[in-house]
Amino acid sequence: MLLEQSNLSGIRAVTAWRQAVSGCAHRARPSCPTARFVHQIRQPCQPSTSWGLSQPRCHLRTATCAASSLEAATEQQPQQKAQKNPQRQQQKGGKQQQQQQASQLTPRSQDYSRWYLDVVRLAELADYGPVRGTMVIRPHGYALWESVQQHLDAAFKATGHQNAYFPQLIPMSFLEKEADHVEGFAPELAVVTTAGGKELEEALVVRPTSETIVNHMFAQWIKSYRDLPLLLNQWANVHRWELRTRPFLRTTEFLWQEGHTAHATAEEAEAEALQMVNIYRDFAVSIACMPVIAGRKSRLETFAGADVTYTIEAMMGDGKALQAGTSHNLGQNFSKAFGTEFLDETGELRNPYQTSWGMSTRMLGGIIMTHGDDAGLRLPPIMAPIQVVIVPILKKGADQKAILAAVSSLEAAAKAAGIRVKLDARLEKSPGSKFNQYELLGVPIRVEVGPRDVEQNSCVTARRDRPGKAGKEFGVPMEPEAFVAHIQGLLKEIQSALLEEATAFRDANIVDVSTYEELKAAVDANKWARGPWAGGDADEKKVKEETQATLRCYPFEQPETVGPCFYSGQQASEVAIFAKAY
Amino acid sequence: MLLEQSNLSGIRAVTAWRQAVSGCAHRARPSCPTARFVHQIRQPCQPSTSWGLSQPRCHLRTATCAASSLEAATEQQPQQKAQKNPQRQQQKGGKQQQQQQASQLTPRSQDYSRWYLDVVRLAELADYGPVRGTMVIRPHGYALWESVQQHLDAAFKATGHQNAYFPQLIPMSFLEKEADHVEGFAPELAVVTTAGGKELEEALVVRPTSETIVNHMFAQWIKSYRDLPLLLNQWANVHRWELRTRPFLRTTEFLWQEGHTAHATAEEAEAEALQMVNIYRDFAVSIACMPVIAGRKSRLETFAGADVTYTIEAMMGDGKALQAGTSHNLGQNFSKAFGTEFLDETGELRNPYQTSWGMSTRMLGGIIMTHGDDAGLRLPPIMAPIQVVIVPILKKGADQKAILAAVSSLEAAAKAAGIRVKLDARLEKSPGSKFNQYELLGVPIRVEVGPRDVEQNSCVTARRDRPGKAGKEFGVPMEPEAFVAHIQGLLKEIQSALLEEATAFRDANIVDVSTYEELKAAVDANKWARGPWAGGDADEKKVKEETQATLRCYPFEQPETVGPCFYSGQQASEVAIFAKAY
Repeated sequence: MLLEQSNLSGIRAVTAWRQAVSGCAHRARPSCPTARFVHQIRQPCQPSTSWGLSQPRCHLRTATCAASSLEAATEQQPQQKAQKNPQRQQQKGGKQQQQQQASQLTPRSQDYSRWYLDVVRLAELADYGPVRGTMVIRPHGYALWESVQQHLDAAFKATGHQNAYFPQLIPMSFLEKEADHVEGFAPELAVVTTAGGKELEEALVVRPTSETIVNHMFAQWIKSYRDLPLLLNQWANVHRWELRTRPFLRTTEFLWQEGHTAHATAEEAEAEALQMVNIYRDFAVSIACMPVIAGRKSRLETFAGADVTYTIEAMMGDGKALQAGTSHNLGQNFSKAFGTEFLDETGELRNPYQTSWGMSTRMLGGIIMTHGDDAGLRLPPIMAPIQVVIVPILKKGADQKAILAAVSSLEAAAKAAGIRVKLDARLEKSPGSKFNQYELLGVPIRVEVGPRDVEQNSCVTARRDRPGKAGKEFGVPMEPEAFVAHIQGLLKEIQSALLEEATAFRDANIVDVSTYEELKAAVDANKWARGPWAGGDADEKKVKEETQATLRCYPFEQPETVGPCFYSGQQASEVAIFAKAY
Repeated sequence: MLLEQSNLSGIRAVTAWRQAVSGCAHRARPSCPTARFVHQIRQPCQPSTSWGLSQPRCHLRTATCAASSLEAATEQQPQQKAQKNPQRQQQKGGKQQQQQQASQLTPRSQDYSRWYLDVVRLAELADYGPVRGTMVIRPHGYALWESVQQHLDAAFKATGHQNAYFPQLIPMSFLEKEADHVEGFAPELAVVTTAGGKELEEALVVRPTSETIVNHMFAQWIKSYRDLPLLLNQWANVHRWELRTRPFLRTTEFLWQEGHTAHATAEEAEAEALQMVNIYRDFAVSIACMPVIAGRKSRLETFAGADVTYTIEAMMGDGKALQAGTSHNLGQNFSKAFGTEFLDETGELRNPYQTSWGMSTRMLGGIIMTHGDDAGLRLPPIMAPIQVVIVPILKKGADQKAILAAVSSLEAAAKAAGIRVKLDARLEKSPGSKFNQYELLGVPIRVEVGPRDVEQNSCVTARRDRPGKAGKEFGVPMEPEAFVAHIQGLLKEIQSALLEEATAFRDANIVDVSTYEELKAAVDANKWARGPWAGGDADEKKVKEETQATLRCYPFEQPETVGPCFYSGQQASEVAIFAKAY
C-alpha cells in the first residue's frame, strides 16, 4: 500500500479567505441526525455564494443563513437512515425494497422537504455520494438530464453555438484577475494542491465556473472582428463547496452547461444574453411544463463579475422560488481583466463584450417540485424516460397467453411510432404494486389490459396527472393505428395539462402588494409578492433580513403604470418579485 | 483580493508514493523548447501507469521511459511557439492566420510527431490548456467527440445499459481497498486537500477512473439476484498526472465513457466484457474506418484490478500501435474489496462478478493518425462534422448571382436530405485557399460550381481521399434528387475506401515472425510483429527493454496451428502481436 492517510495530516490549508470572514455564532446542532446530504456543519457559519451563477453574494447569505429556509431540512430524520439499519441485513432485493417503500412517501402537507427527499430516493433519481454534499445521479434521474441536454443542445446549435471543452483545473491566479469574481467564488472552492506525487507550485482550483479559463483562451483566439462573434458552450461538471446541500438543488458537484460568448459590440452581447434567457424560458415552459417568470436580477443578486444577470424563476409546490437558469451580460469585465483585444473594422483595438449562461441539474429538482404529488413524480411527457407503461392484468383462470399477446402487440405498435414504452409483464408483482411503482416514477400514461379487455379488443388508459377514475378511459381500441393515435393525443394533452395546472398554481400564489405589510403577509403565507420597488441595496438586504424573502427579479412583463415603492414610498419605475427561495 | 498565493506555499504534499519510487537518472533536457503539451519535466522520472485502462503498470513504464517513443515529441520545436511571437501582435484575424498556416503542415515523412501536432493545431481540433498536459477541445475536435458519443451511446443502450453519473471526488481510502488498483493509479493522482476554505480531514482523489466509487454504491444497491445484472455507463472527465502528454493521446484530463457492470455469474461477466470489446471494434471499424485488431492483453498489461483485459489495437500512420479501447473482466476483485454481496436464487450470499470498459478522446488521436495525410485530416464521412463543402467559383465578369443561386439550391437539397453541408460563399477568400482549408479540416467531399457549370446545369465533386484529378468528377447533375443521390453514393464509397486503405496499410505492416531476430527487424522497420509467444513476464519485459516493443495483444483471430515461441522456443498455444505503441 503506497498511500497512507497519516501522511496527509501535515497538509496545511489555504486559509486566506477564511480569515477574511468574521466569526458567526450560528452552528448546526451537533445532535442533528441528518445524513450525508443535509450534512452536519462542523465549522462556523461562513459566507458562501450559493448555487447557480447569479445567486446572492456572501454578504447576503451571511445575513440570513441562521434563518435560511434550507434549515428546515437539517431538522429531518431522513428515511435514508433506515437504509443503514441492521434490518438492511435481511438482504431484500433492492427493487423489491423500493416498491415496498413507495407507499412510505411523506405527504407534502406534512413535510414538504422530506417529501422531496423521499421522492428523490424512492424514485431512484439520485443517491448520496460518499463525500459530503455529493450525489450519484441514478439512471432514472440521468435520463431526465439527458432530456434537458438534448433539448437545450439543439436550441444552442440552432442559434449558432458550438460545443467545446475547457480544462477543469484552473490556476488559482486566474480567479484573482477579476476582483468581484474571486470574491464571489473563493469561499466555496475545492483546491488541488498535490498531483503526480508532488506538491504543485501553484494550487489548482476545481472549476466552480469557467469564465476565467475561457477568457484565458479567448485572449489567444480572438484577434480580429472576423473572429467574432465567438459562440461556445460546454457540458461539464462543476464544484462548489456549499454549506447546506440537497440533491439536485444544491450539491457540491453538479452537472451543467455553460455558454461563453464574445461579441464586437455591447448591443450584440446584450441581445445574446437576452436570447439565451429566452431559450431557457422556452425550454422550461414548453418542455418541462414550468411556467417560469423571466426577468432581470437586482444589482445585489447579479453574478460575480457580470454587468447584468437575467434569470428564470420557477415556483415550487411549496410556494418557494427556484432560480432555474441564468444568463449574464459580462460587459468588458473579463476581456479587460484577461487582456482580450480585437482589431475592429476601422483598425482600432478594442475589448470584446461577453456573455455567459448556464442551466444545471438543479432543473431536475425544479421539475420534481413543480409537478410532483403525494404519489411521487409527475413527468412532462416530452421528457419522461418512460412515456407509457403497459401492465397486463393476469388474473387466475384467465387466458394469460391471449393477454400477453395483446400487450406485446400494443408495445410493438407504440415502439414503432417512436413512443417510449415499457411493458411490465412480471409475474411476481401484482398489478397494484406496479401501478404504485410507475406512479412514483412519474410515467404519464398507464395502459391496462385484462381478460375482458382482450375479449372486447380494447384496453384501459390511466393518466398520471389525474388520479383515480377521472383520469381513466375505458374501451380504448387495441387496433394499432387507433391505439397509437389515442396515446399520442393523450401525451399532448398531459403536456398541456401539466403546464396549465402549474400556471394556475403560480398565478394563484403571486400577490400584488403596495405596502411592506402586504409583502410580509404574502411571504408569510408562502406566496410570491410582486410590487413597485425603488429601494436601494440596503433596503433589499433589510427586506431579506426581516422576511427571508429575496428579490427574485424585475420581471420582463411589467404593468403599464407603476406606483410608489412599497418599501421606500419613492416613485418606482418597475415592479419586482420577492419570495423565499431555494 | 481574498486569495493570496503566498498562503499556498505552506501546503505540504502527499508524498507517500513518491518516496516509494526509486530515483531515476532520466531527466528531460532543460533546454527543451517544447511548449505546454509536450511539457518540460522538472522532476525525476517516476513510474506511471499510462493512458487508458489497461496500459502497463509502473514497473513496465520505468523500464523504457528513457527510450519511450514519445520522447521524440520532446525534441520538437512546436509551431505553437510561433503563436507566442511578437509577430502575433500584428493582430491578424485568427481564422485568416489559420489559413495562412495551413500550408505550414510538416510532411509526415519529415517528422510524423510534428505533423500530428500541426494537424491538431491548424485544424483547430485542440489547443493547449494553461495547466501542464491539459487541452482545450475546440469545436471541430469536440464535434468528432460528439460523433463518438452518439454512436457508442446508442450501442450501449441497445445492449441494455443505462447512463448514470458518479461523483468525481473519491476519498483516498477507497483507492486503497483494492491493492493492485491503488498500486497502478497512485503515482498519477491529482488530490484535493482543501475545500470551502478548510483543510479536509481526508484527502479526495480527482477520479482517474471510477471502479472504487462505483463499487461503494453497488455495495448499497445490490442485495438480491433480482438486482442483477446491473449495467451502467457514465460519460465523464478523468485526470491522470502523466509525465509525457500529447493532445488527445495522453492528456492530464481527458473525456471518456466508463461502463461498470455487475453480474450473478462469472460466465455472464465474461460474456459482457467480450460483448463490449466487440462493440468498440465494430465502432472503430464501421464508423471510424479503423481496422483495429481485437484481442486479450498479457498479464503484465492487464488493468490494475482486473482478471482479464480485452483491447482493440489500431495501427497509426507511422506503424505504431494505439490502444483505442479496453474492456475488463474484473472478476470478484472489487466486489470482495468493497463487500458487495447478493442473495442468489438458492438463498446463498455471493459476491457479484464485474466488468468495466472505456473509450476516450484518445480515439480522436487515432482517427487523425489512421487517416490523415500531408494536406491534413481525412475524416470518415459518417463522423465528419461537415460532410460536404460547396465552394462557388466566383470569377470576375461571370454571372455571380446565377452561381450563388445554384450553390444555395444545392445546399438546400443536401440539407433537406440530412447531409451535413456547408456553403462557403465568402468573397474575401479565394477558392484555392478554401480548398486548402477544407482539406485540412478533412471534409470528405468538396463541390465546386463555376460559370460553365451553371451553364451546363452541373457541378464538380472532389473527394478528399483521392487527391487531384483522380478524385474529381465533372458534370455531376445539379438537379436536386440526382445531386443528393450522387453525394450519398460518394459518401458511402469514401467510407469504404478509407477502411480499405487503412486495412491494406495495416496488413502490409504486420510481419509474421518465428525468431526474435525477425521480431527485432520488424520492429526496427516500424512494423508490427506477430508470432508464437509462450514467454513469461520477465521475457516480455526483456523484449520491451531491448526493442521498445510491447505485447499489444493475443489477437482473437488465431492461426489454426501455432509453432514454438519465437523467444523461448517453448511450444506456444497462441500468437501475440508486438509493436511500439503510443
